[in-house]
Amino acid sequence: MTDPTPISFDALRARVQSIFETCGVRPESAAAVAQVIVAGERDACKSHGIYRLEGCLRVLAAGKVDPQAVPQIHDAGRAVIEVDAGGGFSNPAFYAAKDLLAARAKEMGLAALVIRDCLHFSALWHDVEALAADGLAALSMCPSYAFVAPAGGREPLLGTNPIAFGWPRAGATPYVFDFATSVAARGEIELHRRAGTPIPEGWAVDREGKPTTDPEAALAGAMLTFGAHKGSAISTMVELLSGAMLGEFMSREALDFMGGSAALLPRHGALVLALDPQVFAARSGRNPIAEGEKLLTAIGAQGARLPSERRFAARAKALRDGIPLSAAELAQLERFERLGLAALDA
Amino acid sequence: MTDPTPISFDALRARVQSIFETCGVRPESAAAVAQVIVAGERDACKSHGIYRLEGCLRVLAAGKVDPQAVPQIHDAGRAVIEVDAGGGFSNPAFYAAKDLLAARAKEMGLAALVIRDCLHFSALWHDVEALAADGLAALSMCPSYAFVAPAGGREPLLGTNPIAFGWPRAGATPYVFDFATSVAARGEIELHRRAGTPIPEGWAVDREGKPTTDPEAALAGAMLTFGAHKGSAISTMVELLSGAMLGEFMSREALDFMGGSAALLPRHGALVLALDPQVFAARSGRNPIAEGEKLLTAIGAQGARLPSERRFAARAKALRDGIPLSAAELAQLERFERLGLAALDA
Repeated sequence: MTDPTPISFDALRARVQSIFETCGVRPESAAAVAQVIVAGERDACKSHGIYRLEGCLRVLAAGKVDPQAVPQIHDAGRAVIEVDAGGGFSNPAFYAAKDLLAARAKEMGLAALVIRDCLHFSALWHDVEALAADGLAALSMCPSYAFVAPAGGREPLLGTNPIAFGWPRAGATPYVFDFATSVAARGEIELHRRAGTPIPEGWAVDREGKPTTDPEAALAGAMLTFGAHKGSAISTMVELLSGAMLGEFMSREALDFMGGSAALLPRHGALVLALDPQVFAARSGRNPIAEGEKLLTAIGAQGARLPSERRFAARAKALRDGIPLSAAELAQLERFERLGLAALDA
Repeated sequence: MTDPTPISFDALRARVQSIFETCGVRPESAAAVAQVIVAGERDACKSHGIYRLEGCLRVLAAGKVDPQAVPQIHDAGRAVIEVDAGGGFSNPAFYAAKDLLAARAKEMGLAALVIRDCLHFSALWHDVEALAADGLAALSMCPSYAFVAPAGGREPLLGTNPIAFGWPRAGATPYVFDFATSVAARGEIELHRRAGTPIPEGWAVDREGKPTTDPEAALAGAMLTFGAHKGSAISTMVELLSGAMLGEFMSREALDFMGGSAALLPRHGALVLALDPQVFAARSGRNPIAEGEKLLTAIGAQGARLPSERRFAARAKALRDGIPLSAAELAQLERFERLGLAALDA
């Protein structure tokens, strides 16, 4: 095994963008998607890094994403802004509307962005970090594929339904969390199945709704939410707010739409809320960011880790030393560059 | 032990309101506080029912709540409305601003209500249920007293930080959850201490941050959040959004303000978000409430219980048969009626 080769953020981004353009994606969309994929790799979020390239190319090859979709913004001047991704990837739609969302939140105190009809593959921390960089608190959520049972149930109705939150910090990386409301990722159960090892208790139930540690039974049954009935309630909220409320797919319909298979990325909507702490705090005379620091530094002072700390440390290292790619990763990158979508058949 | 005596909702509300008025609370505020206390009793939420009367009278006797405070609304016509409780109870402030919040959410798509400087004792489901009755989705949260350690830590920095969500359902009670982000309530640990029984694992850590099942060690140490690091992240979000962002107390400062004792109700702010599904869904052509029903009825159809179901069942029974009060509860009610605040010394 050879040592990994470091590559700079900008160089890797340019290469990934070029792959998407080769595969027929319009340059602005290719740039947006490349940005989030390479940001994941930079932050050592391998599950949301260049590993995602193949999945993105597969939906392109399957014709399940519109590579030329131009995000359309619908803005009636209220606190809700909509952007229609037009069956394209979610990220170009978010970037197309982000500045308008931030400006509206600063003007009105808070604002919401509805992303319609998008293919979703990226972590939500991108969205909330981008808004935190504008001084805004942000909450982002979306449904996914229905593989998770509600507390007390056995049939999968809920998605892994991620939820992310960002809070600006002065002169530092923001406070950011981003997690699935399921206990584990479906991919983790799949890894246990391949390895022939049991999954931890509490991850899943079998078809009859009984707790199981057998990965096969878990995949045939349903995953569970984190935090028992409380996590189940939060996951249900994500379905309602970012599915039903937007008139977009909830996780069950998203799965049905793809023929019951999770082989391709899910198509649904997403909801992003942006809140301006300066507007909310104004009458108090207090500085909300300085107040927030009292809590966040006290959490760190007792040795507890803040969410995203590891990610930010990996980022600092990657920006200094380059993003380390293995020989296999580099070889795949070169194959995609050379063959485009045809690499999928190779 | 005699059978409980049933009393009608209206009769009990009138008696509780009259007790508050006897104790010097202005009639509008007495009515608002009586409404939520008796609603708790009606729903068999004993911990938020007439049990709360004594705590309310204690803060009145201690001069820590302003009984004559008149909520002041500050509205700049944006998506954020503020109501200053002026050191009074939170409920009169919420009711004073609720209709304006609902109208603003319908006009703009979503709106936020900031409640400032209030004494808080009631469950949050009142607020989100009231907004769901107006056809709105709602999210409500507030800090409390710092008795909960962040994940990986040992010092209490977080409150039990409740979070509530409401979603309107056609022709039925709304979808409502309302829970503390701590695993358990502090009162439950206190009950174990009095009974001399161990607390379940995962509820608390001792002063050194080690897991403990000893209620004494738990009370001297710190409680834990539900859902490990995910619950801890959500609790931190509640501190930031409903404390720091508003320029109001977070849970640590609320506890310090009361001299480190939780004997009296906490003073802080609260945040309520209201979202109009009809605005969010409009361009989709779908009915968001009907879409939500697909999920909610499917959860029920597999035998899983929706949050608040037990509460709604208790409510239906109480409205039909009356609210059952024990002889001891009736005797205390009569003592408060006869003696007002002097009953506390008796």
